[in-house]
Amino acid sequence: MIDNKGVTQRKVMRFASGKATPSELDAVAVEEPLEIRVSGDTVAITMRTPGQDRELAAGFLFSEGILRSSEDLGGLAHCGHPGKEGWGNIIEVTPAPGLVLDLEKLSAARRGTLTTSACGVCGRRSVEDLMAVCTPVPPGAVLSPKVIARATDRLKEVQLNFARTGGMHAAAALDAKGELLAAAEDVGRHNAVDKVVGELVLEGTLRSARAPTPLLNPSPKRQPGVLVVSGRASFEIVQKAAMARIPVVASVSAASSLAVDLAERSGITLATFVRNGRYNVYTHPERLGLE
Amino acid sequence: MIDNKGVTQRKVMRFASGKATPSELDAVAVEEPLEIRVSGDTVAITMRTPGQDRELAAGFLFSEGILRSSEDLGGLAHCGHPGKEGWGNIIEVTPAPGLVLDLEKLSAARRGTLTTSACGVCGRRSVEDLMAVCTPVPPGAVLSPKVIARATDRLKEVQLNFARTGGMHAAAALDAKGELLAAAEDVGRHNAVDKVVGELVLEGTLRSARAPTPLLNPSPKRQPGVLVVSGRASFEIVQKAAMARIPVVASVSAASSLAVDLAERSGITLATFVRNGRYNVYTHPERLGLE
Repeated sequence: MIDNKGVTQRKVMRFASGKATPSELDAVAVEEPLEIRVSGDTVAITMRTPGQDRELAAGFLFSEGILRSSEDLGGLAHCGHPGKEGWGNIIEVTPAPGLVLDLEKLSAARRGTLTTSACGVCGRRSVEDLMAVCTPVPPGAVLSPKVIARATDRLKEVQLNFARTGGMHAAAALDAKGELLAAAEDVGRHNAVDKVVGELVLEGTLRSARAPTPLLNPSPKRQPGVLVVSGRASFEIVQKAAMARIPVVASVSAASSLAVDLAERSGITLATFVRNGRYNVYTHPERLGLE
Repeated sequence: MIDNKGVTQRKVMRFASGKATPSELDAVAVEEPLEIRVSGDTVAITMRTPGQDRELAAGFLFSEGILRSSEDLGGLAHCGHPGKEGWGNIIEVTPAPGLVLDLEKLSAARRGTLTTSACGVCGRRSVEDLMAVCTPVPPGAVLSPKVIARATDRLKEVQLNFARTGGMHAAAALDAKGELLAAAEDVGRHNAVDKVVGELVLEGTLRSARAPTPLLNPSPKRQPGVLVVSGRASFEIVQKAAMARIPVVASVSAASSLAVDLAERSGITLATFVRNGRYNVYTHPERLGLE
């Protein structure tokens, strides 16, 4: 899932105790732009770490409500000519034959325009706008609180590039027993989550409630129970979990007010500061059997 | 500079040693959308922590090359009606009489479109595109390496909301002697930098090389020497420093490859992992008298 092409080298001098060491080579995280095109139209340019680009594009479009399942896809490939400068930095998405992907669904913040501009923007409306396109995650089975307690340790095991560079975010999807389903590292927090969601979309595990019933694999066994992220839990991270209907979000760092509000409204259990077996639960503790 | 309206409370249960505490109130960072309008047109919606919104809008527009100096501004104020829901979440920018602010300057990634789409995107071109609108920071005076070593400690002193929530980024501008000029906290790394840059733009300290010579205050005394940030140094953080012509970027965490490349090209000294008096220098060590 994670390769380590995402690391390169740059010259560095280390300064300590008033002195600098001679210049040496240091591992740094690669950051390069990726342009995501749908049927030739640019829908996003994101600064990302190369690798898992197909997953990134699929996960981004799924999170934005544009892609419902892998069956909506006709093609998904880098375009251009290998060897040319910039090769690998454009990914072209083609819908399945006869299908049109509705780019109007791109969220207001992405398009830089508003659907309800007369009234302005506010946190409550951001939550309501999302709930209009995504039904709350149902209560479902109880997860062991220990699965959450161990989630960030599980994440740490796959943070190979973070260990080398100290400059990468990571995300992973775990099943309800804490087994790893998908993982990704990226300089961008949102990209890492998009790559994880995209991997589950491309393999057929994740499908939107609006997707037609699949002919094959109607109830996949690899059902994600926890989305674990290395940084903070912001509105956008919880939004991606809500669209993917992953019932628990676990983060190494803090949550924002709007992340808490969206988790509450969308039926997601939000656990933060998951470190050394301890954590905080802001919403839906009943899913962990805590009352 | 920093108030603490950016903190609110949410209910939390704390889980440790297999048990959860009863629910209590916990301080969390406020996240709310801000819509930035120029002459009625929406140019950006960003999830930010309320406070220093005028600075955020001015800094964002300055970093994008749309605003050259405070004299380009006619008005800069929240619009709507106080007391109504969403009040305080739209900021309207009006140019000075007779001036048109050129929104075409918004970077490709912001607009979601490309100026050179036939060729695609790549890191080198991202750097070159920026250098086409911004001349390199000249070598100038040598800064003491100790100013950098202490920069993140200086930042920590103003991270009041981080101390309460654990969920805020921060940025500050220091002068060449390490004295604090401006500081901001925000759930978004880029927002914190925009607020700092915006404060210096609004007070007349920062002006683009393209701005007409000012009638008053031709050489401000409050000249920023260091931009210090709480998180990682990405391309976009160095981009904002380059547009503001701040000669040193100091970050608590790592830099990406493209941040290093842009710092090299734009004449900026990039120092990372600035902690406990130690740090790494990737570019232009000569500005610190290190060779």
